[in-house]
Amino acid sequence: MPIRIAVPKETVAGERRVAMVPDVAEKFTKAGVQIIMQRNAGDSSYFPDSDYDDIALVADAAEVYAQADVVLKVQPPTIDEIKLLPEGCIVISFMQPHREPDRIKALRDRNITALAMELVPRISRAQSMDALSSQASIAGYKGALMAADHAAQFFPMLTTAAGTIRPAKVLIIGAGVSGLQAIATVRRLGAMVEAYDVRKVTKEQVQSLGAKFLELNVDAASDGGYARELTEAEKHHERDMLANHVSAATAVITTAAIPGRVSPRLISTAMVERMRPGAVIIDLASEGGGNCELTKAGETVNHNGVIIHGPLNVPSMLPVHASEMYSRNLYNLLQIMIADGELKPDWEDEVLAGSTLTRAGKIMHEPTRKVVEGEQP
Amino acid sequence: MPIRIAVPKETVAGERRVAMVPDVAEKFTKAGVQIIMQRNAGDSSYFPDSDYDDIALVADAAEVYAQADVVLKVQPPTIDEIKLLPEGCIVISFMQPHREPDRIKALRDRNITALAMELVPRISRAQSMDALSSQASIAGYKGALMAADHAAQFFPMLTTAAGTIRPAKVLIIGAGVSGLQAIATVRRLGAMVEAYDVRKVTKEQVQSLGAKFLELNVDAASDGGYARELTEAEKHHERDMLANHVSAATAVITTAAIPGRVSPRLISTAMVERMRPGAVIIDLASEGGGNCELTKAGETVNHNGVIIHGPLNVPSMLPVHASEMYSRNLYNLLQIMIADGELKPDWEDEVLAGSTLTRAGKIMHEPTRKVVEGEQP
Repeated sequence: MPIRIAVPKETVAGERRVAMVPDVAEKFTKAGVQIIMQRNAGDSSYFPDSDYDDIALVADAAEVYAQADVVLKVQPPTIDEIKLLPEGCIVISFMQPHREPDRIKALRDRNITALAMELVPRISRAQSMDALSSQASIAGYKGALMAADHAAQFFPMLTTAAGTIRPAKVLIIGAGVSGLQAIATVRRLGAMVEAYDVRKVTKEQVQSLGAKFLELNVDAASDGGYARELTEAEKHHERDMLANHVSAATAVITTAAIPGRVSPRLISTAMVERMRPGAVIIDLASEGGGNCELTKAGETVNHNGVIIHGPLNVPSMLPVHASEMYSRNLYNLLQIMIADGELKPDWEDEVLAGSTLTRAGKIMHEPTRKVVEGEQP
Repeated sequence: MPIRIAVPKETVAGERRVAMVPDVAEKFTKAGVQIIMQRNAGDSSYFPDSDYDDIALVADAAEVYAQADVVLKVQPPTIDEIKLLPEGCIVISFMQPHREPDRIKALRDRNITALAMELVPRISRAQSMDALSSQASIAGYKGALMAADHAAQFFPMLTTAAGTIRPAKVLIIGAGVSGLQAIATVRRLGAMVEAYDVRKVTKEQVQSLGAKFLELNVDAASDGGYARELTEAEKHHERDMLANHVSAATAVITTAAIPGRVSPRLISTAMVERMRPGAVIIDLASEGGGNCELTKAGETVNHNGVIIHGPLNVPSMLPVHASEMYSRNLYNLLQIMIADGELKPDWEDEVLAGSTLTRAGKIMHEPTRKVVEGEQP
């Protein structure tokens, strides 16, 4: 029997990605894996069914799941979807392991082996499976475009017959994967960029992209590339330092997001009120409540002429490449679980052990780590 | 008596520019000119009244106009506004000289001297007054951002742990001022760019920006940098050549706009239907009906997954810099009309003679030129 991988159509509103793109499907089928995909699963990421060769297309979700050995998804399976999963199968997707404990219990109770893409360890061997990074990179690029698009002025310097236009000043807070990609993109567009991160280790990366690194007399770098939480005194100092840079900026892009935790409030209402009308804040941390006090998740707020944009599910706005990168991450993760055409996962493997949320009727992961994302505490 | 320049608030819906920015107002007042401005005229371009020093602020439009020697506007004065203008005054703005003859007659009948920014001759002495160019440059930049923002994929190449993302292919049609700025901006974002213009003289400019120039065995360059109209056979040949490049593009930006005339239809429905779902067309010529057969002015059309965006008044979307550049153009034009603190225009001057729409009870400009914009016939 070949391994059967099922790929349903995503059901969460606004989710435009698909867990399997045609290129990756082809790699699997060439390796003898059977792909069962729900009809139109790739439509909203512009991969029509006709782009997939040699796979089984099924209309009904229940049928897609019915005989699956492995289910690949983008969004966590809902309670209803979990009921459709064959007992004992493996499901791999984002799992939001810090939210909705009922979902995790439901996975456990059906004896599902659930791997959470958020939990893939950030070690070099697993880089090619790191979906948090691949999707954060897309969010950073898109965040930079949003800033340019919402701004009332040019980003690049422009020399014209009627005089010179000065380049915009853009401040980027958080120099993790998305922050660095935002810096690179804003620099490409020709703006002057300042960037800030509590982890001094990011200084060199920021500078190598042509941005100025804002210094705080604190270093909060911590274990495994993550940042520790700042003390109250340090936070106060941080806000004081940022206030002047925020008020001078044409655009601010904030990326201090921590999956499963409330985002740190780095920009207060008072700071926004010192910005010029026409300035823009793109809050890429809005999913966790936002880095700006005025952010409303999924909305665009106009506060005295300052635009505060709080987009949700940003990677989904570039569904072609977000799906491409995500499905490659899944493919690479599955490679360490397959040998001789059969599923032979070694659950002691560091990557698999770290990623496992539920297995053998047990919850394997407890949300004990205080900080799980490399952006900011 | 000092020269009195009046600047009303724009009344056309969606017009966010203002004809006088604080920097330019300061230059005028330092030269002894009196500025009378309508309250909140700069608000929608983020220049609050408090940014202007030493000017008279007046609430009512009629009062603004009442004692003006010169009126500066962005959009053409409406018939109602013309009634408010003091007889014999000078008004300078965009005039859409090919549209609404009633407006032009009304200007004549009130003995207004109307200068049309569209008619400023494209000679080197008048480059700093060339508002068509300054605003086209802004439209080209914004058009490139729109293309990147509507696209379902990355523009730059991206090398990641999970593999490489190929750069997007962008086709830009028309290599006038806006087309060249679009090329430059899309190149900055890292996409591969092809560009096409009927005027072979643009080839070198296109290539110097790092784009590939598409060749047609026709050269339609004509007098004064403008292009002649193509023959039917040439048009057929042009569409055949373009069809393959359009179908392979991630994004197409069209800039073949001709003020006062219907835009040439360069992209047919059949061509759109050969594009991949998720591809984007930004039609910067939508004001004149569009370069794409499916364009709807001011709307976004989804045709089998291809997005066709037909934005109107694009410069107004970047009101800060559009106003800044436009008001500098006006300032430079006024410089040749002012001597010793007095209005002393020499109406025989090539620039003034060329720009004059009505004067001394006569219509001075007849729309005889077949092609008035440098983009495409």
